[in-house]
Amino acid sequence: MFVCQGFATSNADQPLGPFSFERRDPGPRDVAIDIHYCGVCHSDLHTARNEWGNTIYPCLPGHEIVGKVSAVGSEVTRFKVGDLAGVGCLVGSCQDCPSCAEGLEQYCEKGFIGTYNGIEKETGKVTFGGYSQAIVVDEGFVLRIPEGVDLAAVAPLLCAGITTYSPLKHWKVGPGQKVGIVGLGGLGHMGLKIAKALGAHVVLFTTSPGKVEDAKRLGADEVIISKNDDEMAAHANSFDFILDCVAADHDVNAYLGLLKRDGTMTQVGAPEKPLSVAAFSLIFKRRNFAGSLIGGIAETQEMLDFCAEHGIVSDIELIQIQDIEAAYARMLKSDVKYRFVIDMASLGQAAAA
Amino acid sequence: MFVCQGFATSNADQPLGPFSFERRDPGPRDVAIDIHYCGVCHSDLHTARNEWGNTIYPCLPGHEIVGKVSAVGSEVTRFKVGDLAGVGCLVGSCQDCPSCAEGLEQYCEKGFIGTYNGIEKETGKVTFGGYSQAIVVDEGFVLRIPEGVDLAAVAPLLCAGITTYSPLKHWKVGPGQKVGIVGLGGLGHMGLKIAKALGAHVVLFTTSPGKVEDAKRLGADEVIISKNDDEMAAHANSFDFILDCVAADHDVNAYLGLLKRDGTMTQVGAPEKPLSVAAFSLIFKRRNFAGSLIGGIAETQEMLDFCAEHGIVSDIELIQIQDIEAAYARMLKSDVKYRFVIDMASLGQAAAA
Repeated sequence: MFVCQGFATSNADQPLGPFSFERRDPGPRDVAIDIHYCGVCHSDLHTARNEWGNTIYPCLPGHEIVGKVSAVGSEVTRFKVGDLAGVGCLVGSCQDCPSCAEGLEQYCEKGFIGTYNGIEKETGKVTFGGYSQAIVVDEGFVLRIPEGVDLAAVAPLLCAGITTYSPLKHWKVGPGQKVGIVGLGGLGHMGLKIAKALGAHVVLFTTSPGKVEDAKRLGADEVIISKNDDEMAAHANSFDFILDCVAADHDVNAYLGLLKRDGTMTQVGAPEKPLSVAAFSLIFKRRNFAGSLIGGIAETQEMLDFCAEHGIVSDIELIQIQDIEAAYARMLKSDVKYRFVIDMASLGQAAAA
Repeated sequence: MFVCQGFATSNADQPLGPFSFERRDPGPRDVAIDIHYCGVCHSDLHTARNEWGNTIYPCLPGHEIVGKVSAVGSEVTRFKVGDLAGVGCLVGSCQDCPSCAEGLEQYCEKGFIGTYNGIEKETGKVTFGGYSQAIVVDEGFVLRIPEGVDLAAVAPLLCAGITTYSPLKHWKVGPGQKVGIVGLGGLGHMGLKIAKALGAHVVLFTTSPGKVEDAKRLGADEVIISKNDDEMAAHANSFDFILDCVAADHDVNAYLGLLKRDGTMTQVGAPEKPLSVAAFSLIFKRRNFAGSLIGGIAETQEMLDFCAEHGIVSDIELIQIQDIEAAYARMLKSDVKYRFVIDMASLGQAAAA
């Protein structure tokens, strides 16, 4: 075991603050990573504040982790000390069920092990995430990060990137297709960049006229103000695929009606309140309303390589870990372009690794 | 033009009653059919009472029509006088759009022409349906009915049959699959028979313990009382496909949670109130919630041939047309096993044809 510093909270009402804890020593299959940057995902806030009712305290969030390998176990073959490495939302799964066999560990039939708020297979203790100096993860759940990238801006790819890449690939988005991205936030701005790189004609939906120019800068072919009924109506029955990145309550029928026959809208934002779906929105054009959860390890690697090849990173605001609560407050107002990333140097050096 | 007797209503509050009207004489491409039987679909009642707010009065419902050809136009090649013939929900479409080109006239981009409450292409007048002595329909929208079948019991295949067959085929239901049918009514009992004939392991969901034995008689491998949470929980994450035939308000999340990863639930019942869908029901297993509308003409013919080959007809209660309002009242209480069919002989002979 080694001592590690991080930022955690001991209950739902408590702000995150300095926290000292122990990480396991790397076993034969483990990779130890000095964390350089960690992205700030809305799930971090939901979990820290127990908004999904399943938080185990103390809670140490963070699952958009990038850094450098500091140690490897004797059986590790794909990483060596000094390599860049990343860890996303998963640090384990059963490796035995049909989903794991297909490389879809995020849909593990026995439940994947989350990077935080999960139960560590190796120790039986709760997992602590990336708001910390270091992490130790089974090699099978560690990603290679290409050299020469902006490391801080790569961090959000580990969750926001793969969450949008996976459905865009699964529903075969590509050239000749008209694809909608709903919402320009952490997820939406990644979905926009990736859909564009996949060759689609990309239309960004936003409620904010102030985001039009930025959406175009990020690659949108068209931007629709979703509050404008005439603009919306002009696009009825015309989309092959829509990726809905909105985590707040909203009218999904307004978007379902924009799909062509046999089109799919996939929800990756997770509103707390159930969504109201008119049966006729689906029936009249045999439309599909689907969901998608992050992505498997192999696909996350594929996404990282795809993004490196296409020069795609997240647009970020770099923060000190001491400012995490202020960042959460701004996130709640959608006041971030488009992802906060914590510079882990602000924590000081690891005690050991 | 020729005079035709039927049953119609002049407004939403008025019961259906005797009605005399004119049909067009058959043109070169038309088939005239003496109607022997017409099934009673819930859409008939919705439309007669303007429950979808789009009814044109007078309204003469009926779109599960079977009978014998009484005359054919000079260009008609597939029918001759004396042939059995059927007409379903559609009597026309643009024949020009991508959906029509694919034989999916029900999704015609310009809107299909309904068998009733549509606007007849040939005359510009409102279409009158199958609660009548005769009908004249473009050959392209007339179905062949195999000889030797129970004609009255075939009538409901033209709507209830194709509405369930089409999604079962589209989502590739077949041997080795576990398939759910929600609701044992007009649609559900057809879905059950067809899914079974397609080779699936079929599980019928009902709220009524009194329907268990009947569901088994109709071919269900298992019957689940959907109010029993333990029974439902035992089937979590196990279905490849679920066909939801319920037109009343109900909790779709209870069924979505029974789908395997990548499974689809398709809504063919059309509840008036929007359905409440929890995003997590879809996200955690990449599930799909879809809709499906009747079927195209080619697929309807395929379904009729499939049903003839497998000895599938509807379970029906034959009624006189004078009892239509009593039948509607029983339908509203789900008190029918499982489809009312009108014996059109109760109208008397056609004045001409």
